[in-house]
Amino acid sequence: MSESPAGLQCPPSPSHYDCIVMAHGGGGRLMQQLLDDIIRPAFANEWLDQRHDSVVLPVTQRCAFTTDSYVIHPLIFPGGDIGKLAVCGTLNDLAMAGARPAYLSVGFILEEGLPLATLRQIVHSMAVTAHQAGVSIVTGDIKVVEWGKADGLYINTSGIGLLETERWLHPGSLRPGDAILLNGDVGRHGIAVMAKRNQLAFEPPLESDCADLSGLIHSLLTQGMPIHCLRDLTRGGLATALIELAGESGLAMELEEATIPVSAAVEGACELLGLDPLFVANEGRFVLCLPEAHADDCLARMRAHPLGANACRIGRIVATPDRRVLLQTRLGTARRLLLPSGEQLPRIC
Amino acid sequence: MSESPAGLQCPPSPSHYDCIVMAHGGGGRLMQQLLDDIIRPAFANEWLDQRHDSVVLPVTQRCAFTTDSYVIHPLIFPGGDIGKLAVCGTLNDLAMAGARPAYLSVGFILEEGLPLATLRQIVHSMAVTAHQAGVSIVTGDIKVVEWGKADGLYINTSGIGLLETERWLHPGSLRPGDAILLNGDVGRHGIAVMAKRNQLAFEPPLESDCADLSGLIHSLLTQGMPIHCLRDLTRGGLATALIELAGESGLAMELEEATIPVSAAVEGACELLGLDPLFVANEGRFVLCLPEAHADDCLARMRAHPLGANACRIGRIVATPDRRVLLQTRLGTARRLLLPSGEQLPRIC
Repeated sequence: MSESPAGLQCPPSPSHYDCIVMAHGGGGRLMQQLLDDIIRPAFANEWLDQRHDSVVLPVTQRCAFTTDSYVIHPLIFPGGDIGKLAVCGTLNDLAMAGARPAYLSVGFILEEGLPLATLRQIVHSMAVTAHQAGVSIVTGDIKVVEWGKADGLYINTSGIGLLETERWLHPGSLRPGDAILLNGDVGRHGIAVMAKRNQLAFEPPLESDCADLSGLIHSLLTQGMPIHCLRDLTRGGLATALIELAGESGLAMELEEATIPVSAAVEGACELLGLDPLFVANEGRFVLCLPEAHADDCLARMRAHPLGANACRIGRIVATPDRRVLLQTRLGTARRLLLPSGEQLPRIC
Repeated sequence: MSESPAGLQCPPSPSHYDCIVMAHGGGGRLMQQLLDDIIRPAFANEWLDQRHDSVVLPVTQRCAFTTDSYVIHPLIFPGGDIGKLAVCGTLNDLAMAGARPAYLSVGFILEEGLPLATLRQIVHSMAVTAHQAGVSIVTGDIKVVEWGKADGLYINTSGIGLLETERWLHPGSLRPGDAILLNGDVGRHGIAVMAKRNQLAFEPPLESDCADLSGLIHSLLTQGMPIHCLRDLTRGGLATALIELAGESGLAMELEEATIPVSAAVEGACELLGLDPLFVANEGRFVLCLPEAHADDCLARMRAHPLGANACRIGRIVATPDRRVLLQTRLGTARRLLLPSGEQLPRIC
């Protein structure tokens, strides 16, 4: 047994019976076998059965379209794996535009030597997550690259969501006076992945917040909440998402640090490692902006959903000084949040 | 200077002024700079300007949806590069379903150390190819992985195409008696990439056939050609595409080897290397099946287009023995084409 840079254990000559080999990406018999044995049974649906270069879909209304690639290391982490992440991430991006996710594509880049058992587990995780969300994985692609590339596997998911309202949720709809709501504590995903990568243990174990938010968003929209804008918190955390929204809307934000929930485990890990939890990645958190008059009502409705149980109000949109995100700290000082050059913890989504 | 396994030259400490660094993938300032300097100016369009997690599109008719990842090595080859390939490949997959390509997404997985100049060149190539096809790249994503992974870059493109006719082009529409037409000589892409990879020289130089076929297909459809099915020839070449179509339709095919055009350069290279040109990859070739009575008319219309100048009839669909593709060879013998286990030349698309 030898070990690749990504830590994949595999025999010197991987066998197509238990590991991915280059020929799995060649469009021939082995690829068909991979599709028939692992992919198609897991994702089975009428669209995938069309078996053509493109799938034909009955979209007859405005739709949202998004894409994301996932290159997370390690592939499996407390609270999820790259498969669940790849499905949730794209569902969430669709939901943030106010769309009901409907159809996903999946592009796998598989590394030679990837155990088929790992692939099965990840594909199963994707299938379960998609099924729970009521969406279908309708088209896909497989490529194989040599051992030592691709960290086991990379996944791209693109998605189409259907827009059921005329309301357009985007940064341009933000207005001064809007309340900024958040659905839970921040920083779990980044710290959980970092801990797994570096074999740090937390007691109790810290799990990623990785989750499909589309059900919660859909329920808020169908309950008539007059939402102006949504944004999920991923790379760069809460702070980066708000700095981007301020930049895109030309407005400013005022936040109260004391109102932003951070778990004791995340707080402790961040202090130890010199990280700022406001900039740590999440995969199941979002901010929601709507007129102040509706904030309490919306908070109550969010809290009625498991993914919004700890929802809270963290600040408000103001007109000036524009494009600035100001944090009132626990110490009573004001701190302007600025975009860092990159991520504190790379390769976590 | 050191060299990564993918052959990327880069200084021991890549600088964000001339090379991709990990921080370009972190969602912070460097990523914004990459987007603002290289990506957004090249792809500029009203959709990309929405700058939200998903783009909202005015699709109000049946549509086709497809995805493909591109992992080609080397990134730049005679007749194209990974950028042109990634756009053409997805345009072609949409066209094969009879759809007019409209919107593309792009997901980049960039390797630390990739020269920004190379990225610029590839992005430019994508932009030019999309512009010429009249499609917009409307949403995207960037991830960065460590040096030594990802061969410089991998690209995923997903696409949405609009269906303008009620006709459903797919393998289930094939009928016994249909003629099988081919738009040109086969094997150029695979041999051109293999030659570049192994520094073999051909005189005259052999170029990949990489091309956007959607214009030709659209013109044939609007001219009323009663096409039953289309399939572009990629991994596995002409033979694999036909074996798949036979399998999916439950019908059989008879081909005349003498009618299948292969250039002298491809023929020579294949003889030298022991490859079968019928199984070598293409990126600008397709087969078209339609009722025999319309074959001559359709061939004439194909030949009127630059990408169909050498179109020819190569065989026909028959009822039995089902799922069999039989080649009448130049020697007068019959040879059944069978799916190989993988690709003769991996990593060429």
